[in-house]
Amino acid sequence: LQQGPGVLVGPGDDAAVVAAPDGRVVATVDVLVEGRHFRRDWSSGHDVGRRAAAASLADVVAMGATPTALVVALTAPRDLDVSWAEAVADGLRDEADLLGASIVGGDISAADAVTVAVTALGDLAGGEPVTRSGARPGDRVVLIGRLGWAAAGLAMLQVGRDDHALADAHRRPLVAYDDALAAVKSGQLSSLIDVSDGLVADLGHVATASGVSIELSAAALPIAPEVAEAAEELGVEACEWVATGGDDHAFAGTCRGEVPKGAVLIGTVVAADGAAQVFFSDRPTPASGGHEHFAS
Amino acid sequence: LQQGPGVLVGPGDDAAVVAAPDGRVVATVDVLVEGRHFRRDWSSGHDVGRRAAAASLADVVAMGATPTALVVALTAPRDLDVSWAEAVADGLRDEADLLGASIVGGDISAADAVTVAVTALGDLAGGEPVTRSGARPGDRVVLIGRLGWAAAGLAMLQVGRDDHALADAHRRPLVAYDDALAAVKSGQLSSLIDVSDGLVADLGHVATASGVSIELSAAALPIAPEVAEAAEELGVEACEWVATGGDDHAFAGTCRGEVPKGAVLIGTVVAADGAAQVFFSDRPTPASGGHEHFAS
Repeated sequence: LQQGPGVLVGPGDDAAVVAAPDGRVVATVDVLVEGRHFRRDWSSGHDVGRRAAAASLADVVAMGATPTALVVALTAPRDLDVSWAEAVADGLRDEADLLGASIVGGDISAADAVTVAVTALGDLAGGEPVTRSGARPGDRVVLIGRLGWAAAGLAMLQVGRDDHALADAHRRPLVAYDDALAAVKSGQLSSLIDVSDGLVADLGHVATASGVSIELSAAALPIAPEVAEAAEELGVEACEWVATGGDDHAFAGTCRGEVPKGAVLIGTVVAADGAAQVFFSDRPTPASGGHEHFAS
Repeated sequence: LQQGPGVLVGPGDDAAVVAAPDGRVVATVDVLVEGRHFRRDWSSGHDVGRRAAAASLADVVAMGATPTALVVALTAPRDLDVSWAEAVADGLRDEADLLGASIVGGDISAADAVTVAVTALGDLAGGEPVTRSGARPGDRVVLIGRLGWAAAGLAMLQVGRDDHALADAHRRPLVAYDDALAAVKSGQLSSLIDVSDGLVADLGHVATASGVSIELSAAALPIAPEVAEAAEELGVEACEWVATGGDDHAFAGTCRGEVPKGAVLIGTVVAADGAAQVFFSDRPTPASGGHEHFAS
């Protein structure tokens, strides 16, 4: 695995050493589990690697930081083909490459199921972290990146449509890292979160942490033609996928002043009337309940 | 979970922010898997937490750095008692507390087996990382911390002696963090490694990375009376446990000049005559082959 210029000691020693020029380091971990987050008959090793990396990289970006390095713990059955595990590593690398981050270390162990735990580190480059707690009444609510795609893809896979174009959106997210980092750089964002549990659930975390409520406009939610078409085909509501589907790793946040380039205005922060909550002004609010992926 | 002064953003956001005053950060990950590294009928949740933390903390120390923070990915069966998972968290915290490190983030997911993947971060405080590649002919080989205890404890557990005093040494290592960090500070160490695969195997990594061979004296290996007694009881050779047993997380390294306080002189670095190798001057060298834990 190639190492970027910020890697002072790469893989192969007891630990890696990575530059942290800012004097602070951002750190997060996400774990994907076979049978819960992915199925090996639906996703390739490369898909799983990309998706596992994306989950953690998006968290770093959602703090307003640029990812620098990943360390990865992989468990796999003894009879798993080595090429499958190698494809996971390639997928991790390809996703990390989008941001110039390096895979600097890892551990592997035999286990009954495949699990991929990815820790991502990031650099704030002198900026303040963008947390979940900075939303204030009057702020605008914005969405960066696509939503509803992975949920639509999962629905297609669940009805046996493995070859549907949207199935790939379940297999590996297309994350709007660059738009999110540009929005951070604009200095307009007062809060930011990675949408992994679903828009309503994750904006609920912002509302709670900030002590505010959030009013969304369903009419303002971007629904891609592909997603709308799939929803019609399966007889479900596309808005439901967009409002509650996880795994696309879009970014939701709040801003003051102009809506940053690449972001879409979807609502307004209002004062919490009692408990902090997220609601739609123009339709019933779907139950969030946290995203449960599939199977158990 | 209490947070130390170096934690700028703790758990509960997309990612944590940790001070890295040195401008570099040390990072490593280790994963423990139920049925391979531990059994729930032998080890408590607290034991597993301590041991999982120790594996990663020792790697950071073996780079010459002081651990600052942990992020943890836990998978567990849905029917696992919540108190067991809470005990894991307590064990992680208690081990991290020994070094003043904080648990700053985590992820948890349902899975068939318990796995605990711990990423540890550390600070070099202006010092150079102590790698595996710095050993040179003429350097002294030193051991810091106890060895053979976990292997003896595992052997006792395997013959049903769950209540034997040494069984606890398998359940959770007693790691000589402070002696190792003091040795690093002395500036005498030319290489250092965490002994997790066994002394011969891990010094083999030092030999290979440094392009040297290592001559060990079996007579110089410290064999604790408890370990010697257990070996006699089970009719095995204590030296075998000390030379090839993993999981104690002792530190092995090389130094120039005086042997640091808390370290024991166990051999000499010699020029590699062809392939780098580790051998005993006073007994046959046990096959290392990497530590295989138990079960598969």
